[in-house]
Amino acid sequence: MIAGIIGATGYAGAELVRLLSGHPEIKALALASVSYEGNRIEHIYPNFLGKVSAPLTKVEAVIAAAAVVFASLPNGVGEPYAKACVERGIPYIDLSADFRFDDDEATFAAWYGKPYAYPALRKQSVYGLPELNRRSIKALAASGPVIIGNPGCYPTGASLGAFPALAKGLAGPGVIIVDAASGVTGGGREPARGFHYPECADSVTPYKVGSHRHTPEISRNFKAMVNSGAGAPAQKEPSLIFTPHLAPMNRGILSTIYIPLTDIWQATVPVTGAPRPPTQAIEEKTGEIRELYTEFYRDEPFVRVLPSGTIAATSRIRQSNLCDISVHLDPSGKTLIVATAIDNMVKGAAGQAVQNMNIIFGFDETTGLCAIPASF
Amino acid sequence: MIAGIIGATGYAGAELVRLLSGHPEIKALALASVSYEGNRIEHIYPNFLGKVSAPLTKVEAVIAAAAVVFASLPNGVGEPYAKACVERGIPYIDLSADFRFDDDEATFAAWYGKPYAYPALRKQSVYGLPELNRRSIKALAASGPVIIGNPGCYPTGASLGAFPALAKGLAGPGVIIVDAASGVTGGGREPARGFHYPECADSVTPYKVGSHRHTPEISRNFKAMVNSGAGAPAQKEPSLIFTPHLAPMNRGILSTIYIPLTDIWQATVPVTGAPRPPTQAIEEKTGEIRELYTEFYRDEPFVRVLPSGTIAATSRIRQSNLCDISVHLDPSGKTLIVATAIDNMVKGAAGQAVQNMNIIFGFDETTGLCAIPASF
Amino acid sequence: MIAGIIGATGYAGAELVRLLSGHPEIKALALASVSYEGNRIEHIYPNFLGKVSAPLTKVEAVIAAAAVVFASLPNGVGEPYAKACVERGIPYIDLSADFRFDDDEATFAAWYGKPYAYPALRKQSVYGLPELNRRSIKALAASGPVIIGNPGCYPTGASLGAFPALAKGLAGPGVIIVDAASGVTGGGREPARGFHYPECADSVTPYKVGSHRHTPEISRNFKAMVNSGAGAPAQKEPSLIFTPHLAPMNRGILSTIYIPLTDIWQATVPVTGAPRPPTQAIEEKTGEIRELYTEFYRDEPFVRVLPSGTIAATSRIRQSNLCDISVHLDPSGKTLIVATAIDNMVKGAAGQAVQNMNIIFGFDETTGLCAIPASF
Amino acid sequence: MIAGIIGATGYAGAELVRLLSGHPEIKALALASVSYEGNRIEHIYPNFLGKVSAPLTKVEAVIAAAAVVFASLPNGVGEPYAKACVERGIPYIDLSADFRFDDDEATFAAWYGKPYAYPALRKQSVYGLPELNRRSIKALAASGPVIIGNPGCYPTGASLGAFPALAKGLAGPGVIIVDAASGVTGGGREPARGFHYPECADSVTPYKVGSHRHTPEISRNFKAMVNSGAGAPAQKEPSLIFTPHLAPMNRGILSTIYIPLTDIWQATVPVTGAPRPPTQAIEEKTGEIRELYTEFYRDEPFVRVLPSGTIAATSRIRQSNLCDISVHLDPSGKTLIVATAIDNMVKGAAGQAVQNMNIIFGFDETTGLCAIPASF
Repeated sequence: MIAGIIGATGYAGAELVRLLSGHPEIKALALASVSYEGNRIEHIYPNFLGKVSAPLTKVEAVIAAAAVVFASLPNGVGEPYAKACVERGIPYIDLSADFRFDDDEATFAAWYGKPYAYPALRKQSVYGLPELNRRSIKALAASGPVIIGNPGCYPTGASLGAFPALAKGLAGPGVIIVDAASGVTGGGREPARGFHYPECADSVTPYKVGSHRHTPEISRNFKAMVNSGAGAPAQKEPSLIFTPHLAPMNRGILSTIYIPLTDIWQATVPVTGAPRPPTQAIEEKTGEIRELYTEFYRDEPFVRVLPSGTIAATSRIRQSNLCDISVHLDPSGKTLIVATAIDNMVKGAAGQAVQNMNIIFGFDETTGLCAIPASF
Repeated sequence: MIAGIIGATGYAGAELVRLLSGHPEIKALALASVSYEGNRIEHIYPNFLGKVSAPLTKVEAVIAAAAVVFASLPNGVGEPYAKACVERGIPYIDLSADFRFDDDEATFAAWYGKPYAYPALRKQSVYGLPELNRRSIKALAASGPVIIGNPGCYPTGASLGAFPALAKGLAGPGVIIVDAASGVTGGGREPARGFHYPECADSVTPYKVGSHRHTPEISRNFKAMVNSGAGAPAQKEPSLIFTPHLAPMNRGILSTIYIPLTDIWQATVPVTGAPRPPTQAIEEKTGEIRELYTEFYRDEPFVRVLPSGTIAATSRIRQSNLCDISVHLDPSGKTLIVATAIDNMVKGAAGQAVQNMNIIFGFDETTGLCAIPASF
Repeated sequence: MIAGIIGATGYAGAELVRLLSGHPEIKALALASVSYEGNRIEHIYPNFLGKVSAPLTKVEAVIAAAAVVFASLPNGVGEPYAKACVERGIPYIDLSADFRFDDDEATFAAWYGKPYAYPALRKQSVYGLPELNRRSIKALAASGPVIIGNPGCYPTGASLGAFPALAKGLAGPGVIIVDAASGVTGGGREPARGFHYPECADSVTPYKVGSHRHTPEISRNFKAMVNSGAGAPAQKEPSLIFTPHLAPMNRGILSTIYIPLTDIWQATVPVTGAPRPPTQAIEEKTGEIRELYTEFYRDEPFVRVLPSGTIAATSRIRQSNLCDISVHLDPSGKTLIVATAIDNMVKGAAGQAVQNMNIIFGFDETTGLCAIPASF
Repeated sequence: MIAGIIGATGYAGAELVRLLSGHPEIKALALASVSYEGNRIEHIYPNFLGKVSAPLTKVEAVIAAAAVVFASLPNGVGEPYAKACVERGIPYIDLSADFRFDDDEATFAAWYGKPYAYPALRKQSVYGLPELNRRSIKALAASGPVIIGNPGCYPTGASLGAFPALAKGLAGPGVIIVDAASGVTGGGREPARGFHYPECADSVTPYKVGSHRHTPEISRNFKAMVNSGAGAPAQKEPSLIFTPHLAPMNRGILSTIYIPLTDIWQATVPVTGAPRPPTQAIEEKTGEIRELYTEFYRDEPFVRVLPSGTIAATSRIRQSNLCDISVHLDPSGKTLIVATAIDNMVKGAAGQAVQNMNIIFGFDETTGLCAIPASF
């Protein structure tokens, strides 16, 4: 079948081109780009020379030709295309924030500065984090043309790290802190001072502290995860602090997540005047929680809960759709510390979008996403 | 006068060589190195060719020649040299952890695996964080040969970021989280897999989660800072979680510090179902706290509280003794978020050691440390 | 079939594991490692966790189990294994230098410090640069178990850049200069001072100037390429200068190759007192040579001659088996300047080895090597 | 005295601010910026916060206030300011190309696309490479207000590497090749796709092959250096090929320079069928030439000819005005290979400009430029 990509020349668009070109169910690509209409993708991204030479056309032509449309556009401009796809009866997978908030238009409007163009479209849309919403995605896709609100990059890494703790009742009252570092591709393809090589090389810095737009998305996911649990959740409304950082690397997001444990999940540690190194009890409780995480994600094809002694690192999942998770415990035994690593452009964007397409069309979920990550 | 450096060929040693070579009060260097005895520093570090050609000799020769001795040795081996310096009547500035815990031998032993060799030396030693202990350093130096426990790199960045909040009673009950990223020089000069270029380039990863030896040092500093305050502290025993990360840069530590605010310092924000972008009240409260920080550090020559709109970044303080601090507030108004940037090898090691020497000898505290950081 | 890898835990070995795990004709891997025998590859390289869990066994077991053996060993130790494979009747693809010099034992001995262990093996061995020796590889493989001397990384990039000029008689008398920069993975997996992150980050430096072991290999290739030409070569014995550099990147070799042109291929440029910007004649002649290069490599699946305006860059071929080539002319019109980019670990090592396996077994040459390079 | 900087907010301008702020003879800075007039330098470059707070004013005000003016402007716009300075009787140190070609207006016009605005100014201008023109600079400064054409970054590294070989008659007939790699600050402060972090990180690529504007400047220097020699030069008109590369580092230029040796300077090496490793004769001849280089630069404060075994690397001269040079010989004995490392922003721009100021005013040439480079 033909896959269409709107906004094909942005970074997430280019990553979609790469992944879909290797997808066995996709026979051709239809690409649209406002900035480069009339050109060919291989001339904008010479890594594609001789490999992908699809022309860059108009959005309308893409929607008309494709059996599925991916949109990698700025926030707040794609709804008409979503509508057009629904009317044509084909799925629309949106990598912007437009469909991430379901019917909570107020939150979207507060953070993105505009109301929904077509609020009714949310009846057919679903937030596309497969580990959380796989069943809903399938169900909605079965009932008609579906719109996927493909998750943000930070929300993916943060949410997958907290999910087992939230769903299984480990998280107690108190704020959950997500401290995350992203590679520079997260800033997109357009040159800007903050992403100019000499400004960000060899340096780490936080940005948009307390004000990043992914905050409400992570928060909403946390709440949904608590509610997804079978047992009664201890914490109905987890509160969240999220701080993004820019790190001098191309790809990857490393999230360090601090989750206060409910009493029964805390490790018992003798109180001393000053901190002491982790005790045996800490090791054991960590092992117990790691086992719970491993069990929780047993059937997930893209989530790896790392064994004891291995810590999540962005280098190990580059160019793959994997999310690596390592589980740790504060030596006081009261706070769970989870580290997750994803490739921001794959599991954090284009790869997850392809995963959603696979779910919608009933392909094996790993189709086109099996690449084993390189060692360096 | 002559300055001696023991362990001159490690990274902190080499940085001491650089800084002391440009110090107007230091006329010559006496250098010791077990690994390279008989060689010259300029042949081990060719950046010094033609600039610093001091020979590498024995420790004893250095102690005999110097008016002040800096020791950059592994933990737990330097006490005999400290003793020898005291007996010779000269100050000993120790960059290891041996003298950072004062008379709390139990904490040192728990984390570093051995008891003190000469516990009595702690009568003459002081923890060398000038912003906290300047008066004690001066007093002790006035009374005889002083031993400085020069602070660890992470504790410096973490402690300076929390100090005003702790001393002025802003910090309320609850755990303080320090999430920090260090450049690779923090791992020292000896090649090891974790610091092999292809293993750490283009990647971010936490390490020693919940078990890093700087944890008790930061914790002890927080407690001392609470107690240093004039007003009654709200939180006598702040608890701490500290997570270090390795980032692909040479120099620098970026610390992001989450401090729960006591009620009266919290900003009042309307409660909503989902997080909302920062309100005017958040901006105002942030400004108020920034002002308090600015006032607190008004006379500190090496601490810069950044103005609104500027966020701490390690790129801006490279090769300088500065600590940049930016002040932020979680949009719920309940948690203070402080970001600090230091050069781990300067303010986090060699520069702070020189600062301590300046204090001991009554030189202007910025002598030899005035270099303006480069823009890139 | 089963592929065996001897020396599986070095960097080239790990890259073979990655590529062969995705190769549709390879059903299983048999891995040997002296250093890690008894372990599993996924524990040495956690990027393979859950993806490749083959145990690390003895060399003998690998040779006994495999239908083809790849050896990624230090120079001068693998000949007994090659002999064993030949005796078992299976191909042996050697990534060391042992079989790169055919029967020129004198050159091998001069540069690698030891004679051949089994000189007679060279009757069954061939230098595995497919673009040069495809026919010989096929012929030898057809006649019995073949040994492949898989090319060095620098020789691959240098040779492919010069091949058309040498074979088609463009190169005139005079020295050919190859100035190349490699990523740090070229130094292998073992930590060493020169590859310690703080020593090589943010820096470029030449190394082994005038003495790198790839010099005779490049030189021999140049000679073979001249002789491969249909027309009478103008330059029977091209002389060579080769200077490698270390650049702060993980993967990739960028080679800049200066080839003096024979009279008839030079562009005619008016002589001026000082250099002038490139003239129209330069553009035209460059276009003519680019066309010749394009035509020369028309049927090569892994060589891309870049169009006018696009210059070879290592970023565009990361993790792929491609060799990108851009063609330029000195403004005097007398020297051809060719830039080539390869991934040193793929086309420069493991990928080319897999390409050789494909040729030997009659698979399509691109099998398992089709990954489209990422845009960033 | 007051130093003025026109174009103070570009990268070279900012580096001038840093260096001049630490210069003991400079009491204040007068800064001009078209883009940021009315602002303060510390707000454009927050590394200067609290250290340099000079306001950004108009060019005219700077010229009126200063005793010396540095101009870091685009090519072809600064001549009126040079004229104004001369009329005011103060030196003008120009970091653009406008005054680098003396009275050879034809070459300037051919490469920079416009004629001189005030050709007569060249009577008072001199090319400011102190190692070549120190005497002329002094003489011209003694006779009236001088204009310095401060050298380009690549020409500085290339010229210093070739100077002894050219002046002492080592260079024989044939083309000299300069293959150089620059850090990204060389591209300036303005964001552009080629310097966007994800486009240039982890990659090496040549650019402007055969057409970089520094070509005629290097060529002219080579000619001047040949003519500066006492002995009769063997090669009156050395021809040049120059290829710049972009490397993923912030600062630094590494130049590898290939100089064909005249017969009498060649090492005698037995001719073999294939290249052989360097012989004793090569080592000896290299030593002889290294000695000549060392002697040649004996009195130069900023040039270091490295001892045997040490190769030029950009990491060792960061933030310093040094030029490191290592001398090598091709194993055939016929080509001298010289590697030089400079910081492109210091010896390649702002530092050399300060060095020129020191010469003009009769200060010790190293004043304000003594910083010892850091080890990492």
